[in-house]
Amino acid sequence: MSLSKLAGLTSCQIADALIKLGVSSGGYIPDINRLVGKSVCGPAYTVQFVNAENRDAPKLSEHFVDTAPSGSVIVIDTPPHTKNAVWGGLMTAGALARGAVGVIISGRCRDLAEQRELGLPVFARGHSIVGQSPFTRPSAINVPLTIRHPDERVAFPPVQVAPGDWIVADEDGVVCVPKDLESKVVELAAKLEEIDQRCMEDIKTGKGIQASFLKHRGK
Amino acid sequence: MSLSKLAGLTSCQIADALIKLGVSSGGYIPDINRLVGKSVCGPAYTVQFVNAENRDAPKLSEHFVDTAPSGSVIVIDTPPHTKNAVWGGLMTAGALARGAVGVIISGRCRDLAEQRELGLPVFARGHSIVGQSPFTRPSAINVPLTIRHPDERVAFPPVQVAPGDWIVADEDGVVCVPKDLESKVVELAAKLEEIDQRCMEDIKTGKGIQASFLKHRGK
Amino acid sequence: MSLSKLAGLTSCQIADALIKLGVSSGGYIPDINRLVGKSVCGPAYTVQFVNAENRDAPKLSEHFVDTAPSGSVIVIDTPPHTKNAVWGGLMTAGALARGAVGVIISGRCRDLAEQRELGLPVFARGHSIVGQSPFTRPSAINVPLTIRHPDERVAFPPVQVAPGDWIVADEDGVVCVPKDLESKVVELAAKLEEIDQRCMEDIKTGKGIQASFLKHRGK
Repeated sequence: MSLSKLAGLTSCQIADALIKLGVSSGGYIPDINRLVGKSVCGPAYTVQFVNAENRDAPKLSEHFVDTAPSGSVIVIDTPPHTKNAVWGGLMTAGALARGAVGVIISGRCRDLAEQRELGLPVFARGHSIVGQSPFTRPSAINVPLTIRHPDERVAFPPVQVAPGDWIVADEDGVVCVPKDLESKVVELAAKLEEIDQRCMEDIKTGKGIQASFLKHRGK
Repeated sequence: MSLSKLAGLTSCQIADALIKLGVSSGGYIPDINRLVGKSVCGPAYTVQFVNAENRDAPKLSEHFVDTAPSGSVIVIDTPPHTKNAVWGGLMTAGALARGAVGVIISGRCRDLAEQRELGLPVFARGHSIVGQSPFTRPSAINVPLTIRHPDERVAFPPVQVAPGDWIVADEDGVVCVPKDLESKVVELAAKLEEIDQRCMEDIKTGKGIQASFLKHRGK
Repeated sequence: MSLSKLAGLTSCQIADALIKLGVSSGGYIPDINRLVGKSVCGPAYTVQFVNAENRDAPKLSEHFVDTAPSGSVIVIDTPPHTKNAVWGGLMTAGALARGAVGVIISGRCRDLAEQRELGLPVFARGHSIVGQSPFTRPSAINVPLTIRHPDERVAFPPVQVAPGDWIVADEDGVVCVPKDLESKVVELAAKLEEIDQRCMEDIKTGKGIQASFLKHRGK
């Protein structure tokens, strides 16, 4: 299983570091919320779903859960406004058998009570009662995903998730760290956290936010 | 009070059976979520709300809660993007006095603390602090409802709810079973559940999802 | 710290009184939900955020939290569809040091775990992991806000929040009471509550909602 020092950081700390490193979105994938479990950290195993009526898109020869690597976070993208689930209890059981550590769904999941029993962390845009068939189908694995907000009025930048990028998710939200930025993020986040702790101490004693930021952040 | 074996099934199991029986939506009414209580099963008593400025729509001579049958699930449809509540604490008290077993609202409810005290299960699109007047009004009872998703960008099929159709709702969501499909759904869901349990056992022991589906589902 | 008898009322009771007093929205600001804490009552200290690329809007010379009055509720308006947070752990620490009693955000907040530890009530449209910079910036304080629903398809009337208007927020939602209506609302809400309690008693004993309303409300 892959281990990263990112696991010791919060999604907010990582986003702050990514923004300072020039990633315009901060790696943030908005509005995918925690449904089950506590937090997740691992390299992405990516899955692209398409609408079932799309006959041109490729088909998979194996079930996408059966090919999930041990230690991976399964990241699933679905078409916007998908109301069916693309993840359920049997898939969580399969993912646990493979040693996957979590699931991030730009889409929906079902079987919430069963999910909580099984215990694999699941983050999704919502829940549903209908399964993937006949609405959607998995079309590709191990491809780069461009996860857009399902509401096209949202200007927040879409996030690219390449296989092997690091995913961290907790109560605040989901962040994707490009593979080659992992060590830079860990290093920078530690520095930023130290500065924030000094600010927090001063702010708690009533020194004011502006004065504390000026003293410790330099602006 | 009406009793049905549907009460022993989850909303997900029922949706799976309905899809196999050719109901394209699986009976699923998306994005009506559990606010109070655990789960609900009963025949629908339907209520159509209209915007208050609609003077052409019929008026009711009695309060719609006073005519709810014992054992029924009150199903309320409101115009899209309604932000006022159409259900509150007094109505829950009235529904309990009538022996209704739950409320499903394509719209909003208020008095959440009072609702939890009274204990009637309430499922809704959200909560509010303003009541129905002067925004909306009940216009018809015991009519077929066509519950559409309030977001017109959603392609998921609208669901017809006729008076007496069976409503089951739990943490995953809300499903409507057409009256004449009740026994078929109960029978088929039992079969599907047995197959799923066999799949679950195999998947948990690491036999793979594709292999387990092939063995027990035949594909 | 300012104290008001509004603190003894629920948001729903206040909205009912405001509607009877001719405020078309009932003072209700829809879809700002409780993330941390229980309930809030205090006079509004207002903050207007703008998109960062807006260079024409004024700039603040001090941090907006450092100028929050003791006993105030900080009310923040942000542009629609803002996905970054405009509030986080350090700001909550600063607000507590100033003696503010809560935060109402037409926008997002982050650091949820830290927020719960610190304990200041926070109501918001959602949560996020990215901070305000480089997406948005505070532009004005102590100005009247017009809080519109971020979804322009929603017809519900926007709510004006002037500095010093009373804000009450609880599990059901957020209400704004115009300063000069405070005593009228307190007086009327007490009367309405008494009538509602009489209705509740009759309804619980099965006297029917219509009959109970006719007897106690006169219609």
